[in-house]
Amino acid sequence: MENRMEISLLMDHYGVLLTEKQRSIMSMYYDMDLSLSEIAENQDTSRQAIHDLIKRCIRILEDYEGKLSLMRSSQESERTKERIMMVLGESCLKDDNTLLQEIRGLLGEI
Amino acid sequence: MENRMEISLLMDHYGVLLTEKQRSIMSMYYDMDLSLSEIAENQDTSRQAIHDLIKRCIRILEDYEGKLSLMRSSQESERTKERIMMVLGESCLKDDNTLLQEIRGLLGEI
Repeated sequence: MENRMEISLLMDHYGVLLTEKQRSIMSMYYDMDLSLSEIAENQDTSRQAIHDLIKRCIRILEDYEGKLSLMRSSQESERTKERIMMVLGESCLKDDNTLLQEIRGLLGEI
Repeated sequence: MENRMEISLLMDHYGVLLTEKQRSIMSMYYDMDLSLSEIAENQDTSRQAIHDLIKRCIRILEDYEGKLSLMRSSQESERTKERIMMVLGESCLKDDNTLLQEIRGLLGEI
């Protein structure tokens, strides 16, 4: 169901906005890699109900990304951080690994 | 009604998650500084209805911040960016204003 990597990233950004039950089922399917049938059995419901719930969650996550763009912004930020490290790595700091590591660490906090 | 600066920041982060009507009324009250009575007249409703709508919007915005912490993260990121600029400003780059400005510009994109 859709791109697992992208949905995993969407869950990282917006998973907290789902209900506990929705999060739990998304985790069973995408993190624990259980099949729809296994989740259905575990939840005492039908395979179709789990399928529909997962599709609905994906729509909710995509709707949030459409409005807040946290995933896209985060990916752009990572590229900008790499660009900063590249610029510094070509400056007079290029042999100062201690300071470059400090800057990388600080960028990691952003 | 509550801290105007904080609500303005919450609107910057989560305003897109409100309905168009909610956004519009929040903007009239917090950006355009109209009174509850003026907004009520404009919307052909009661002052109390506008008051309740604004209170509800604030709860929605605070609920999102409670879950996503975008405002808090953004404030922490700004402090970290300043820390990076301080570290670089004390390094061998301290007199290289062109490069420091380039880094500041890149940090501004994050």
